Amino acid sequence: MKTVQTINELQNILYSNKGKTIGLVPTMGYLHEGHLALLNKAREENDIVVSSIFVNPAQFGPNEDLDRYPRDIEHDTELATKAGVDFLFVPSATEMYPFESGITIHVGELSTKLCGESRPGHFDGVLKVITKLFHLVQPTKAYFGQKDAQQLAIIETFVNAYNFPVQIERVSTVREADGLAKSSRNVFLSVKERSEAIHLFKGLTVATETWKETKDINEALNRGKSYIEQNTSGKIDYFEALSYPNLQPEFNHAEQILFATAVFFENARLIDNIIVDVKEV
Amino acid sequence: MKTVQTINELQNILYSNKGKTIGLVPTMGYLHEGHLALLNKAREENDIVVSSIFVNPAQFGPNEDLDRYPRDIEHDTELATKAGVDFLFVPSATEMYPFESGITIHVGELSTKLCGESRPGHFDGVLKVITKLFHLVQPTKAYFGQKDAQQLAIIETFVNAYNFPVQIERVSTVREADGLAKSSRNVFLSVKERSEAIHLFKGLTVATETWKETKDINEALNRGKSYIEQNTSGKIDYFEALSYPNLQPEFNHAEQILFATAVFFENARLIDNIIVDVKEV
Repeated sequence: MKTVQTINELQNILYSNKGKTIGLVPTMGYLHEGHLALLNKAREENDIVVSSIFVNPAQFGPNEDLDRYPRDIEHDTELATKAGVDFLFVPSATEMYPFESGITIHVGELSTKLCGESRPGHFDGVLKVITKLFHLVQPTKAYFGQKDAQQLAIIETFVNAYNFPVQIERVSTVREADGLAKSSRNVFLSVKERSEAIHLFKGLTVATETWKETKDINEALNRGKSYIEQNTSGKIDYFEALSYPNLQPEFNHAEQILFATAVFFENARLIDNIIVDVKEV
Repeated sequence: MKTVQTINELQNILYSNKGKTIGLVPTMGYLHEGHLALLNKAREENDIVVSSIFVNPAQFGPNEDLDRYPRDIEHDTELATKAGVDFLFVPSATEMYPFESGITIHVGELSTKLCGESRPGHFDGVLKVITKLFHLVQPTKAYFGQKDAQQLAIIETFVNAYNFPVQIERVSTVREADGLAKSSRNVFLSVKERSEAIHLFKGLTVATETWKETKDINEALNRGKSYIEQNTSGKIDYFEALSYPNLQPEFNHAEQILFATAVFFENARLIDNIIVDVKEV
C-alpha cells in the first residue's frame, strides 16, 4: 500500500492506472470494523482500492469536535494495508482547500431533518469534500455505511441529481457483539455510558417491531423513544421515522422507512438507525 | 454527426468511445461564428467533439427571455455538422432536470458583480447545468468564449476549487467586421440599434487605451462610459474594470484586468469586454 499526501501524486498514480475499475472509500480515519466492511467490499469489487483519510473541517460546526476528533494514522495505515487498500490518500487541509472560492453547495431540505437539524452546514461540508474526492479519484464505485443514513441519502440524491459518473454502494452497519453500532466516537463513552449505549439499537428495534405489528407509527416512535429514555442517561436528540431516501414524514408510497435516532452522552453524540423494507413486512 | 436526445444514449456512445479525448462545447444553440470558433478549436484538439444545445431554464430569471430566446435547431444541426461535431446533445428540460433534489450550487461573491448583479441566480443556474454536462460527457477539455467573461471566470474558479477533471479553454471573442461581438441576441436589435451597438467595443477600447496611457482607472472608466452614452440610445447596465479571474476592484497585483460593459437596448441586453494583460502594457 502506498500513502499519498498530495493531489499531484494522486493524479499521477491514477493516470498510470487508467482503464482499471476504482473503488473509493472516503473516511475521516480512526478506522474500525465498520470501515473495514467498506474496504472489504471495495476490495472484492474493483481493480484498485483508494481510501481517503481526511478529517474534513468543512463538515464540523464551530462548536463541534474537530480538534478532538480521534486520530491514529499509524493504526489506520496498518488496517488499510491489511484490508488490501492500494492507495491511502491522506491530504492536509491546505492541500484540499488551498483557497476559498466562495462557491458553495447547499443541501437544502434534506439537511433540515435528523442530524442536519442540530448540525447546520454539516452536510454542505460533506458534499464539498465528496465532490472534490469524486473528481480527484474518479471512482467506479464509492462505498458508504448505512450507519450515516442521512449522509447516504443525501449523497445518493446528489449523485443522481448532478449525474456524477459513480455508483454509490450502501454497506450495512457493523455492530459490536452486543449490538452497539461501531463508531469512532465510541471511545468517548464512559464505562457506564458504554453499557447503556446498546439501548439505541434496542430502542430502534422496539420501534420497528412495533411498527411491523401495529402499523401505528406514533405508537412505534413513542415506545422506542421511551425505551431509550428509561434505559440510558443520554439525552435524545431525535428519534424519528422518515421515508428513505427522500426523508419525508409521509411514507404511504415509500419502499423503505428509516427509523433513526441520535443520543447525546456526556462526551459523545451517538447515532444509529434501522431501514425497514416495506414490501418485506 | 449524430444528434442525441437522451442521457442514456449519450452514455452508451461515450462508453463505446472510452479512452479517446473528448472536447465539449456547451451552448444554448442559435449558433453563430462565436460558437464556430469554439467548435473549430475543439475539433483541432480532440478525438471526439461533443456539443450540447440546451436553453437552460435554470439560468433564466422569472422576468428574463427564456421563452423568446432564439432557437433554430435545423440551422444549428447544419453548422455543427460542418464544424465536424461528432455528437450533438440536445436534451429536453425534463431529461436534464427530471426531479428537483433541493441541492443547489451557489456562486456567492463572484456572482455579485457585473452581469450577476442584475441577474440574480443566473450563474448558479449556469453551474448547475455545467456540473451535469461535465459529469455526463466527462470531457478532456471544455470550450468557453471570452465574451461571457464573468461566466468564464466563475467556471474556471469552480473547476479549480472542486477539482473537476477537465481543462477549461478560453476562446477569444469573435466580432462582426465593424467590431460588434457576435451574439445570439443581436437579432433583437433594430437597424438603428445595430448601428449603435458597435460603440460598446469602441467604448471599451477608449477605456483600455486611456488606462494604458494614464494608468488612471477612474479616468479610463469615465471616458469609456461617456463614449457609450454619447454614441448609443442604450442604457448602460455597468461599465467596470475588475481583476481577472477573481473579479476584485483592486488590481495592484492582478496579471489581467477585465474591462466589461453591458448595455440595455429596447429588446436586447448586450455585453462585451476586453481583457488587458498587465505585463504587456
